[in-house]
Amino acid sequence: MNKGLLIVVSGASGTGKGTVCDALLKKIPTLAYSISATTRAPRPGEKEGENYYFLSREAFSEMIAQGGFLEYAEVFGNYYGTPLGKIEERRKVGQDVLLEIDVQGALKVMERIPDGVFIFLLPPSLAELERRIRGRGTETEETIAKRLGKAKTEIAVGKKYRYAVVNDQVEQAVNKIEAILTAEHCRADQNSDIFEELGR
Amino acid sequence: MNKGLLIVVSGASGTGKGTVCDALLKKIPTLAYSISATTRAPRPGEKEGENYYFLSREAFSEMIAQGGFLEYAEVFGNYYGTPLGKIEERRKVGQDVLLEIDVQGALKVMERIPDGVFIFLLPPSLAELERRIRGRGTETEETIAKRLGKAKTEIAVGKKYRYAVVNDQVEQAVNKIEAILTAEHCRADQNSDIFEELGR
Repeated sequence: MNKGLLIVVSGASGTGKGTVCDALLKKIPTLAYSISATTRAPRPGEKEGENYYFLSREAFSEMIAQGGFLEYAEVFGNYYGTPLGKIEERRKVGQDVLLEIDVQGALKVMERIPDGVFIFLLPPSLAELERRIRGRGTETEETIAKRLGKAKTEIAVGKKYRYAVVNDQVEQAVNKIEAILTAEHCRADQNSDIFEELGR
Repeated sequence: MNKGLLIVVSGASGTGKGTVCDALLKKIPTLAYSISATTRAPRPGEKEGENYYFLSREAFSEMIAQGGFLEYAEVFGNYYGTPLGKIEERRKVGQDVLLEIDVQGALKVMERIPDGVFIFLLPPSLAELERRIRGRGTETEETIAKRLGKAKTEIAVGKKYRYAVVNDQVEQAVNKIEAILTAEHCRADQNSDIFEELGR
Protein backbone atom coordinates (compact mmCIF):
# COMPACT_ATOMS: atom_id res chain seq x y z
CA MET A 1 0.00 0.00 0.00
CA ASN A 2 1.18 3.50 -0.80
CA LYS A 3 1.49 6.09 1.94
CA GLY A 4 -1.31 8.63 2.29
CA LEU A 5 -0.62 12.23 1.28
CA LEU A 6 -0.08 15.16 3.61
CA ILE A 7 -2.16 18.02 2.20
CA VAL A 8 -1.14 21.38 3.60
CA VAL A 9 -3.68 24.16 3.05
CA SER A 10 -2.33 27.55 3.90
CA GLY A 11 -2.66 31.19 2.93
CA ALA A 12 -2.65 34.74 4.20
CA SER A 13 -5.23 35.75 6.81
CA GLY A 14 -8.52 36.67 5.19
CA THR A 15 -8.26 34.12 2.39
CA GLY A 16 -10.75 31.73 3.97
CA LYS A 17 -8.59 28.72 4.89
CA GLY A 18 -11.04 27.53 7.55
CA THR A 19 -14.13 27.70 5.35
CA VAL A 20 -12.40 25.91 2.47
CA CYS A 21 -11.02 23.17 4.74
CA ASP A 22 -14.43 22.58 6.36
CA ALA A 23 -16.06 22.25 2.93
CA LEU A 24 -13.27 19.96 1.74
CA LEU A 25 -13.68 17.64 4.74
CA LYS A 26 -17.42 17.48 4.08
CA LYS A 27 -16.86 16.61 0.41
CA ILE A 28 -14.13 14.02 1.08
CA PRO A 29 -15.11 12.21 4.30
CA THR A 30 -12.12 9.83 4.07
CA LEU A 31 -9.75 12.76 4.60
CA ALA A 32 -8.28 12.91 8.11
CA TYR A 33 -7.86 16.30 9.75
CA SER A 34 -4.71 17.10 11.67
CA ILE A 35 -5.70 18.51 15.06
CA SER A 36 -3.28 20.93 16.69
CA ALA A 37 -2.06 20.80 20.28
CA THR A 38 -2.03 23.91 22.46
CA THR A 39 -1.24 25.04 25.97
CA ARG A 40 -3.98 27.65 26.01
CA ALA A 41 -7.11 26.95 28.06
CA PRO A 42 -10.16 25.52 26.27
CA ARG A 43 -12.79 28.13 25.38
CA PRO A 44 -16.43 27.40 26.20
CA GLY A 45 -17.68 24.62 23.94
CA GLU A 46 -14.23 23.50 22.75
CA LYS A 47 -13.61 19.78 23.04
CA GLU A 48 -10.42 17.85 23.70
CA GLY A 49 -9.30 15.98 20.57
CA GLU A 50 -11.84 17.74 18.40
CA ASN A 51 -10.84 21.42 18.37
CA TYR A 52 -7.43 20.92 19.94
CA TYR A 53 -5.41 18.59 22.10
CA PHE A 54 -5.13 20.65 25.28
CA LEU A 55 -1.78 20.10 26.95
CA SER A 56 -0.06 21.48 30.03
CA ARG A 57 3.13 23.47 29.40
CA GLU A 58 5.10 20.55 30.86
CA ALA A 59 3.53 18.01 28.54
CA PHE A 60 4.01 20.32 25.57
CA SER A 61 7.69 20.92 26.41
CA GLU A 62 8.29 17.20 26.78
CA MET A 63 6.71 16.56 23.38
CA ILE A 64 8.99 19.23 21.87
CA ALA A 65 12.02 17.54 23.46
CA GLN A 66 10.97 14.19 22.00
CA GLY A 67 10.62 15.63 18.50
CA GLY A 68 6.88 15.04 18.65
CA PHE A 69 5.92 18.16 16.72
CA LEU A 70 6.11 18.69 12.99
CA GLU A 71 6.26 22.39 13.85
CA TYR A 72 5.30 24.56 16.80
CA ALA A 73 5.22 28.23 17.72
CA GLU A 74 4.57 30.46 20.70
CA VAL A 75 1.80 33.01 20.22
CA PHE A 76 0.96 35.51 22.98
CA GLY A 77 2.52 33.26 25.61
CA ASN A 78 0.77 30.06 24.50
CA TYR A 79 2.24 27.18 22.51
CA TYR A 80 0.60 25.77 19.42
CA GLY A 81 1.94 22.74 17.56
CA THR A 82 1.24 20.05 14.98
CA PRO A 83 1.61 16.54 16.47
CA LEU A 84 3.68 14.44 14.07
CA GLY A 85 2.71 10.99 15.39
CA LYS A 86 -1.00 11.22 14.56
CA ILE A 87 -0.22 12.35 11.00
CA GLU A 88 2.23 9.52 10.40
CA GLU A 89 -0.21 6.94 11.84
CA ARG A 90 -2.86 7.87 9.30
CA ARG A 91 -0.48 8.19 6.34
CA LYS A 92 1.01 4.76 7.07
CA VAL A 93 -2.37 3.10 6.55
CA GLY A 94 -2.82 4.98 3.27
CA GLN A 95 -5.09 7.76 4.54
CA ASP A 96 -4.65 11.35 3.35
CA VAL A 97 -4.25 13.94 6.08
CA LEU A 98 -5.32 17.58 5.82
CA LEU A 99 -3.30 20.19 7.69
CA GLU A 100 -4.60 23.75 7.86
CA ILE A 101 -1.78 26.03 8.90
CA ASP A 102 -0.51 29.59 8.69
CA VAL A 103 2.25 30.64 6.31
CA GLN A 104 5.08 30.55 8.87
CA GLY A 105 4.08 27.05 9.99
CA ALA A 106 3.76 25.79 6.41
CA LEU A 107 7.33 26.87 5.62
CA LYS A 108 8.61 24.76 8.52
CA VAL A 109 6.53 21.77 7.34
CA MET A 110 7.97 22.21 3.84
CA GLU A 111 11.46 21.59 5.22
CA ARG A 112 10.45 18.51 7.20
CA ILE A 113 8.05 16.91 4.70
CA PRO A 114 9.08 18.04 1.21
CA ASP A 115 6.77 15.48 -0.45
CA GLY A 116 3.74 17.15 1.15
CA VAL A 117 1.13 18.70 -1.13
CA PHE A 118 1.41 22.42 -0.43
CA ILE A 119 -1.61 24.45 -1.49
CA PHE A 120 -1.69 28.22 -1.08
CA LEU A 121 -5.08 29.93 -1.04
CA LEU A 122 -5.23 33.32 -2.71
CA PRO A 123 -7.89 36.03 -2.40
CA PRO A 124 -9.46 36.91 -5.77
CA SER A 125 -8.14 40.49 -5.51
CA LEU A 126 -6.60 42.98 -3.08
CA ALA A 127 -9.91 44.85 -2.91
CA GLU A 128 -11.71 41.64 -1.89
CA LEU A 129 -9.02 40.82 0.67
CA GLU A 130 -9.47 44.26 2.24
CA ARG A 131 -13.25 43.80 2.23
CA ARG A 132 -12.87 40.47 4.05
CA ILE A 133 -10.48 41.90 6.63
CA ARG A 134 -12.77 44.90 7.16
CA GLY A 135 -15.78 42.58 7.24
CA ARG A 136 -14.87 41.48 10.74
CA GLY A 137 -15.95 45.02 11.65
CA THR A 138 -14.13 45.19 14.95
CA GLU A 139 -10.80 46.70 14.05
CA THR A 140 -9.28 50.18 13.78
CA GLU A 141 -7.95 51.61 10.51
CA GLU A 142 -4.44 51.15 11.82
CA THR A 143 -4.99 47.46 12.54
CA ILE A 144 -6.62 46.95 9.15
CA ALA A 145 -3.65 48.58 7.35
CA LYS A 146 -1.27 46.38 9.37
CA ARG A 147 -3.22 43.22 8.55
CA LEU A 148 -3.33 44.09 4.85
CA GLY A 149 0.41 44.74 4.79
CA LYS A 150 1.07 41.43 6.53
CA ALA A 151 -1.24 39.60 4.12
CA LYS A 152 0.62 41.06 1.11
CA THR A 153 3.95 39.90 2.57
CA GLU A 154 2.50 36.43 3.17
CA ILE A 155 1.06 36.23 -0.35
CA ALA A 156 4.56 36.75 -1.81
CA VAL A 157 5.67 33.61 0.07
CA GLY A 158 2.93 31.65 -1.72
CA LYS A 159 5.14 31.33 -4.81
CA LYS A 160 7.17 28.75 -2.88
CA TYR A 161 4.18 26.41 -2.71
CA ARG A 162 3.55 23.93 -5.48
CA TYR A 163 -0.07 24.97 -5.90
CA ALA A 164 -1.97 28.25 -5.71
CA VAL A 165 -5.77 28.22 -5.66
CA VAL A 166 -7.86 31.38 -5.84
CA ASN A 167 -10.65 31.29 -3.27
CA ASP A 168 -13.36 33.27 -5.05
CA GLN A 169 -16.20 30.76 -4.74
CA VAL A 170 -15.62 28.17 -2.00
CA GLU A 171 -17.15 25.36 -4.09
CA GLN A 172 -14.81 26.03 -7.01
CA ALA A 173 -11.78 26.21 -4.73
CA VAL A 174 -12.80 22.87 -3.17
CA ASN A 175 -13.23 21.29 -6.63
CA LYS A 176 -9.75 22.44 -7.59
CA ILE A 177 -8.23 21.02 -4.41
CA GLU A 178 -10.07 17.75 -5.06
CA ALA A 179 -8.53 17.64 -8.56
CA ILE A 180 -5.10 18.31 -7.02
CA LEU A 181 -5.58 15.31 -4.68
CA THR A 182 -6.62 13.08 -7.61
CA ALA A 183 -3.58 14.25 -9.58
CA GLU A 184 -1.19 13.73 -6.66
CA HIS A 185 -2.48 10.18 -6.24
CA CYS A 186 -1.55 9.68 -9.92
CA ARG A 187 2.06 10.68 -9.26
CA ALA A 188 4.28 7.86 -10.50
CA ASP A 189 6.07 7.69 -7.13
CA GLN A 190 2.68 7.22 -5.45
CA ASN A 191 2.10 4.13 -7.60
CA SER A 192 5.25 2.14 -6.99
CA ASP A 193 3.13 -0.91 -6.05
CA ILE A 194 1.55 -1.03 -9.53
CA PHE A 195 4.94 -0.64 -11.21
CA GLU A 196 6.26 -3.47 -9.04
CA GLU A 197 3.28 -5.68 -9.92
CA LEU A 198 3.72 -5.04 -13.66
CA GLY A 199 7.49 -5.48 -13.52
CA ARG A 200 7.30 -9.06 -12.31
CA MET B 1 -1.34 35.49 -19.78
CA ASN B 2 0.29 32.25 -18.65
CA LYS B 3 1.72 29.84 -21.17
CA GLY B 4 -0.38 26.79 -22.08
CA LEU B 5 0.76 23.38 -20.88
CA LEU B 6 2.38 20.66 -22.95
CA ILE B 7 0.64 17.42 -21.97
CA VAL B 8 2.58 14.35 -23.02
CA VAL B 9 0.59 11.11 -23.00
CA SER B 10 2.74 8.06 -23.46
CA GLY B 11 2.91 4.42 -22.52
CA ALA B 12 3.93 0.97 -23.66
CA SER B 13 2.25 -0.45 -26.75
CA GLY B 14 -1.06 -2.05 -25.88
CA THR B 15 -1.96 0.45 -23.14
CA GLY B 16 -4.45 2.32 -25.32
CA LYS B 17 -2.79 5.73 -25.78
CA GLY B 18 -4.77 6.47 -28.95
CA THR B 19 -8.18 5.63 -27.48
CA VAL B 20 -7.52 7.65 -24.32
CA CYS B 21 -6.24 10.68 -26.29
CA ASP B 22 -9.24 10.62 -28.64
CA ALA B 23 -11.64 10.54 -25.68
CA LEU B 24 -9.69 13.32 -23.93
CA LEU B 25 -9.87 15.58 -27.01
CA LYS B 26 -13.63 14.97 -27.21
CA LYS B 27 -14.06 15.86 -23.53
CA ILE B 28 -11.82 18.95 -23.62
CA PRO B 29 -12.41 20.58 -27.02
CA THR B 30 -10.08 23.51 -26.20
CA LEU B 31 -7.13 21.12 -26.11
CA ALA B 32 -4.90 21.35 -29.21
CA TYR B 33 -3.46 18.14 -30.64
CA SER B 34 0.13 18.02 -31.79
CA ILE B 35 0.21 16.53 -35.30
CA SER B 36 3.37 14.66 -36.29
CA ALA B 37 5.32 15.13 -39.50
CA THR B 38 6.43 12.13 -41.55
CA THR B 39 8.20 11.26 -44.78
CA ARG B 40 6.10 8.17 -45.36
CA ALA B 41 3.43 8.29 -48.07
CA PRO B 42 -0.16 9.02 -47.03
CA ARG B 43 -2.36 5.94 -46.71
CA PRO B 44 -5.79 5.96 -48.33
CA GLY B 45 -8.04 8.39 -46.45
CA GLU B 46 -5.24 10.13 -44.56
CA LYS B 47 -5.32 13.92 -44.79
CA GLU B 48 -2.48 16.45 -44.76
CA GLY B 49 -2.49 18.44 -41.50
CA GLU B 50 -5.05 16.15 -39.91
CA ASN B 51 -3.38 12.74 -39.59
CA TYR B 52 0.15 13.94 -40.37
CA TYR B 53 2.09 16.66 -42.06
CA PHE B 54 3.46 14.78 -45.06
CA LEU B 55 6.93 16.02 -45.95
CA SER B 56 9.54 15.09 -48.54
CA ARG B 57 12.84 13.75 -47.20
CA GLU B 58 14.47 17.02 -48.24
CA ALA B 59 11.93 19.17 -46.39
CA PHE B 60 12.19 16.92 -43.32
CA SER B 61 16.02 17.08 -43.32
CA GLU B 62 15.94 20.85 -43.62
CA MET B 63 13.54 21.09 -40.67
CA ILE B 64 15.91 18.88 -38.63
CA ALA B 65 18.83 21.18 -39.55
CA GLN B 66 16.84 24.23 -38.45
CA GLY B 67 16.00 22.66 -35.06
CA GLY B 68 12.35 22.49 -36.07
CA PHE B 69 11.61 19.20 -34.32
CA LEU B 70 11.07 18.65 -30.64
CA GLU B 71 12.14 15.06 -31.37
CA TYR B 72 12.31 12.83 -34.42
CA ALA B 73 13.16 9.23 -35.23
CA GLU B 74 13.65 7.00 -38.23
CA VAL B 75 11.41 3.92 -38.31
CA PHE B 76 11.71 1.37 -41.13
CA GLY B 77 13.33 3.95 -43.41
CA ASN B 78 10.78 6.70 -42.80
CA TYR B 79 11.17 9.76 -40.59
CA TYR B 80 8.63 10.76 -37.98
CA GLY B 81 8.90 13.95 -35.95
CA THR B 82 7.12 16.39 -33.64
CA PRO B 83 7.13 19.94 -35.08
CA LEU B 84 8.15 22.36 -32.33
CA GLY B 85 6.84 25.59 -33.90
CA LYS B 86 3.16 24.59 -33.91
CA ILE B 87 3.32 23.56 -30.25
CA GLU B 88 4.97 26.81 -29.18
CA GLU B 89 2.46 28.91 -31.18
CA ARG B 90 -0.45 27.38 -29.27
CA ARG B 91 1.23 27.49 -25.87
CA LYS B 92 2.14 31.17 -26.31
CA VAL B 93 -1.54 32.09 -26.58
CA GLY B 94 -2.33 30.09 -23.46
CA GLN B 95 -3.66 26.94 -25.13
CA ASP B 96 -2.81 23.49 -23.80
CA VAL B 97 -1.29 21.09 -26.32
CA LEU B 98 -1.66 17.30 -26.21
CA LEU B 99 1.20 15.19 -27.52
CA GLU B 100 0.70 11.43 -27.89
CA ILE B 101 4.08 9.79 -28.24
CA ASP B 102 5.96 6.54 -27.68
CA VAL B 103 8.27 6.01 -24.72
CA GLN B 104 11.53 6.73 -26.60
CA GLY B 105 10.12 9.99 -27.99
CA ALA B 106 8.77 11.08 -24.60
CA LEU B 107 12.22 10.70 -23.02
CA LYS B 108 13.66 13.09 -25.61
CA VAL B 109 10.83 15.58 -24.99
CA MET B 110 11.52 15.35 -21.23
CA GLU B 111 15.03 16.68 -21.83
CA ARG B 112 13.89 19.54 -24.04
CA ILE B 113 10.73 20.59 -22.18
CA PRO B 114 11.15 19.61 -18.52
CA ASP B 115 8.07 21.63 -17.48
CA GLY B 116 5.87 19.42 -19.67
CA VAL B 117 3.18 17.32 -17.98
CA PHE B 118 4.34 13.75 -18.51
CA ILE B 119 1.62 11.14 -18.11
CA PHE B 120 2.37 7.43 -18.44
CA LEU B 121 -0.51 5.09 -19.20
CA LEU B 122 -0.36 1.70 -17.52
CA PRO B 123 -2.28 -1.47 -18.35
CA PRO B 124 -4.35 -2.72 -15.38
CA SER B 125 -2.33 -5.97 -15.27
CA LEU B 126 0.16 -8.03 -17.24
CA ALA B 127 -2.60 -10.52 -18.12
CA GLU B 128 -4.72 -7.71 -19.57
CA LEU B 129 -1.73 -6.32 -21.49
CA GLU B 130 -1.15 -9.75 -23.02
CA ARG B 131 -4.85 -10.04 -23.87
CA ARG B 132 -4.74 -6.66 -25.64
CA ILE B 133 -1.61 -7.54 -27.59
CA ARG B 134 -3.09 -10.92 -28.56
CA GLY B 135 -6.39 -9.20 -29.36
CA ARG B 136 -4.99 -7.89 -32.60
CA GLY B 137 -5.08 -11.54 -33.63
CA THR B 138 -2.59 -11.25 -36.44
CA GLU B 139 0.68 -12.13 -34.78
CA THR B 140 2.77 -15.23 -34.12
CA GLU B 141 3.59 -16.46 -30.60
CA GLU B 142 7.14 -15.27 -31.12
CA THR B 143 6.05 -11.74 -32.03
CA ILE B 144 3.65 -11.66 -29.09
CA ALA B 145 6.39 -12.71 -26.66
CA LYS B 146 8.67 -10.02 -28.15
CA ARG B 147 6.01 -7.33 -27.84
CA LEU B 148 5.25 -8.29 -24.25
CA GLY B 149 8.95 -8.19 -23.35
CA LYS B 150 9.31 -4.77 -24.97
CA ALA B 151 6.21 -3.49 -23.16
CA LYS B 152 7.62 -4.63 -19.79
CA THR B 153 10.88 -2.79 -20.50
CA GLU B 154 8.95 0.33 -21.47
CA ILE B 155 6.76 0.15 -18.36
CA ALA B 156 9.87 0.30 -16.17
CA VAL B 157 10.73 3.64 -17.84
CA GLY B 158 7.33 4.98 -16.72
CA LYS B 159 8.71 5.66 -13.24
CA LYS B 160 10.55 8.63 -14.74
CA TYR B 161 7.26 10.33 -15.61
CA ARG B 162 5.57 12.60 -13.09
CA TYR B 163 2.22 10.83 -13.46
CA ALA B 164 1.10 7.25 -13.98
CA VAL B 165 -2.53 6.53 -14.89
CA VAL B 166 -3.94 3.02 -15.10
CA ASN B 167 -6.06 2.62 -18.22
CA ASP B 168 -8.63 0.10 -17.04
CA GLN B 169 -11.79 2.01 -18.01
CA VAL B 170 -11.14 4.72 -20.63
CA GLU B 171 -13.61 7.12 -19.01
CA GLN B 172 -11.90 6.87 -15.62
CA ALA B 173 -8.46 7.35 -17.16
CA VAL B 174 -9.74 10.45 -18.98
CA ASN B 175 -11.24 11.83 -15.75
CA LYS B 176 -7.90 11.37 -14.01
CA ILE B 177 -6.02 13.13 -16.81
CA GLU B 178 -8.57 15.95 -16.67
CA ALA B 179 -7.90 16.29 -12.91
CA ILE B 180 -4.16 16.34 -13.64
CA LEU B 181 -4.69 19.23 -16.08
CA THR B 182 -6.76 21.15 -13.51
CA ALA B 183 -4.06 20.57 -10.89
CA GLU B 184 -1.24 21.61 -13.21
CA HIS B 185 -3.09 24.85 -13.98
CA CYS B 186 -3.11 25.44 -10.21
CA ARG B 187 0.69 25.20 -10.04
CA ALA B 188 1.97 28.38 -8.41
CA ASP B 189 4.38 28.99 -11.29
CA GLN B 190 1.43 28.80 -13.69
CA ASN B 191 -0.21 31.66 -11.79
CA SER B 192 2.54 34.27 -11.74
CA ASP B 193 0.11 36.84 -13.19
CA ILE B 194 -2.19 36.56 -10.14
CA PHE B 195 0.76 36.81 -7.74
CA GLU B 196 1.93 39.91 -9.63
CA GLU B 197 -1.54 41.46 -9.48
CA LEU B 198 -1.82 40.81 -5.72
CA GLY B 199 1.73 42.02 -5.06
CA ARG B 200 1.10 45.54 -6.33
